[in-house]
Amino acid sequence: MSHTRSFFIGKVPIGGGAPISVQSMTNTDSRDAAATLAQVKALAAVGCDLVRLSVYDDACLEALPVIVDGSPVPLVADIHYRADLAVGAIERGIAKVRINPGNIGGMDKVRRVADCAKAHHVPIRIGVNSGSIEKDILAREGGVTPRGMVDSALAHARLLEKAGFEDIVLSLKASSVPLTVAAYELADRETDYPLHVGVTEAGLPGAGNIKSAVGIGALLLRGIGDTVRVSLTGSPIPEAQAAIDILQAVGLRKAYVNVVSCPTCGRTGIDVAAIAQRVQEELKDVRVPMTVAVMGCVVNGPGEAREADVGLAGGGLSAAAEAGGAGGSYAVGALFEKGKAPMKVEGDLAGILIARAREIAAEKQKPKG
Amino acid sequence: MSHTRSFFIGKVPIGGGAPISVQSMTNTDSRDAAATLAQVKALAAVGCDLVRLSVYDDACLEALPVIVDGSPVPLVADIHYRADLAVGAIERGIAKVRINPGNIGGMDKVRRVADCAKAHHVPIRIGVNSGSIEKDILAREGGVTPRGMVDSALAHARLLEKAGFEDIVLSLKASSVPLTVAAYELADRETDYPLHVGVTEAGLPGAGNIKSAVGIGALLLRGIGDTVRVSLTGSPIPEAQAAIDILQAVGLRKAYVNVVSCPTCGRTGIDVAAIAQRVQEELKDVRVPMTVAVMGCVVNGPGEAREADVGLAGGGLSAAAEAGGAGGSYAVGALFEKGKAPMKVEGDLAGILIARAREIAAEKQKPKG
Repeated sequence: MSHTRSFFIGKVPIGGGAPISVQSMTNTDSRDAAATLAQVKALAAVGCDLVRLSVYDDACLEALPVIVDGSPVPLVADIHYRADLAVGAIERGIAKVRINPGNIGGMDKVRRVADCAKAHHVPIRIGVNSGSIEKDILAREGGVTPRGMVDSALAHARLLEKAGFEDIVLSLKASSVPLTVAAYELADRETDYPLHVGVTEAGLPGAGNIKSAVGIGALLLRGIGDTVRVSLTGSPIPEAQAAIDILQAVGLRKAYVNVVSCPTCGRTGIDVAAIAQRVQEELKDVRVPMTVAVMGCVVNGPGEAREADVGLAGGGLSAAAEAGGAGGSYAVGALFEKGKAPMKVEGDLAGILIARAREIAAEKQKPKG
Repeated sequence: MSHTRSFFIGKVPIGGGAPISVQSMTNTDSRDAAATLAQVKALAAVGCDLVRLSVYDDACLEALPVIVDGSPVPLVADIHYRADLAVGAIERGIAKVRINPGNIGGMDKVRRVADCAKAHHVPIRIGVNSGSIEKDILAREGGVTPRGMVDSALAHARLLEKAGFEDIVLSLKASSVPLTVAAYELADRETDYPLHVGVTEAGLPGAGNIKSAVGIGALLLRGIGDTVRVSLTGSPIPEAQAAIDILQAVGLRKAYVNVVSCPTCGRTGIDVAAIAQRVQEELKDVRVPMTVAVMGCVVNGPGEAREADVGLAGGGLSAAAEAGGAGGSYAVGALFEKGKAPMKVEGDLAGILIARAREIAAEKQKPKG
């Protein structure tokens, strides 16, 4: 894990090995306090640690106090060009500001924002996008490069440093995954500012999830990244869920049930997809880190199922055929638990597995003693 | 890019820097030639280069010739424990066999399979799963470790090497992403056999796509991996599509339209999601590598749109408000093309963008001269 500076965004720590936080951004009109607050709450409910909103004019500032008061999580103001909006947002209780100090009109305004942020213990994120690199850097680099992106971010950071401000978070997003990864790797080597990682403009969920998972996941696996944002077109709720899924995949968040299930093949003896779907759906409320496996057959099934807290392996083709075929509602299988002998089960396999998983979750939650 | 040996799976090259192939596996009963062949064709149609099917008994062998004859892509037989099925599958035109030689009953049988595979120029994949590591290795390692997974694969490989056979592909899959990545990295350092990469039992699409993209993507970005399989519960079609999306994300396959679109925020002036969805849907048939951008506003929009072959940026809040609001069917924006001045557009923005993208695709396909 790369070492970075650490500080707080409201109550949420960032950097220096703190848990990686998940953030997303509202897509309501920020002048509409009620709609924006409702979306902030919805994001917090699915596990978002921070929520960003665009503060683009004075009407947005006026809406802020209601949103800040009602929000269960610290809020980040996304601001372009205007120092007065940054100061106004900080004075109204925003916990972090995203603004690029090189674009706000000179060193006096940079000092005004930096002094205000310092007085309120509010960090500033500098957000470089591959699409908004300064022209002189583009000319020097002959286009968008990792070096150019990092230099752009560091030039913005130097303005804040000159104003005596160092609670800085950097982001270096591109819509190209390899460019994004290379830019963050370079930043990781050259600065100790915490990094907000994401692939920008990833597109629609589907291919957008894949791009985000590849880019963010590759960085997190190398210990790079302190807070994560997935950028998908449409509702921000799937963004937050994808970010949490990425953290679960790399083993950096473990508060949910991890469903492991096999891809099914000609050997599959039970309806793996239907059972896995029911398990995932019905155990959604469980907030205990555990793995539940659903395996179609006895070839890889028992081994994988044994690694899980509880796992089911289908009884195999002959057993399934006896029981009325692979798609039948009646099926036979074996239930596996860590360190226990497998147990033959039959009938409503999904129901049996879910009930046992709930028992194990309850045992795990019991205080030890 | 790691250097590996290279050979052919039917007409498909693998290793030594050949294009990374995508594979998936049928989940029909392999004894049912018609159903299995239909699924093989469907997988080939979405871009699968290789298709695997389970050959688990003599009835599967009997069905093979019809499937092999009708298949547009080379087929891989997935076989457990039985040397006679491997030989039978090779004699019936299978292009690759997945079998673990340590499990087929001794060196005589290993030689029988290796000799037959050699005579038919058929490579063999050794597939190690975290759930099926040999007991002695588990005991030595104190559990499932990358070292144990690689040692298991190399022990199987040594049996084939002893039989004079070296057209070997290795896979080392775990349902844990970090374990999977660590195992492949170790194998990449210690062998020059081509690697079939995947995260096993990734679960349902959604979280399963994320796990696969993180694991496979991280490896491909480091130059590790020669063929890719995504393992999702349910239909194999989404598996193949996810694998292609991963290759597109890391820049290793560029045969499709890459839709870049912004996450939308309070500044968004056009219906980005609807436009991006239409662009993706209506340009699905285009087989030309190009990037089409849909950006909500003029802050990051023009920069990102300019990096694309063609891009649209929304006209901004004030322009959108004049035109009847963000959700309205009538909207204004700017069309960006590489090296051209932006052009104001209004009305059916999606239609205008799609038409221009088709023109550009046609120009790109025209032979240069």
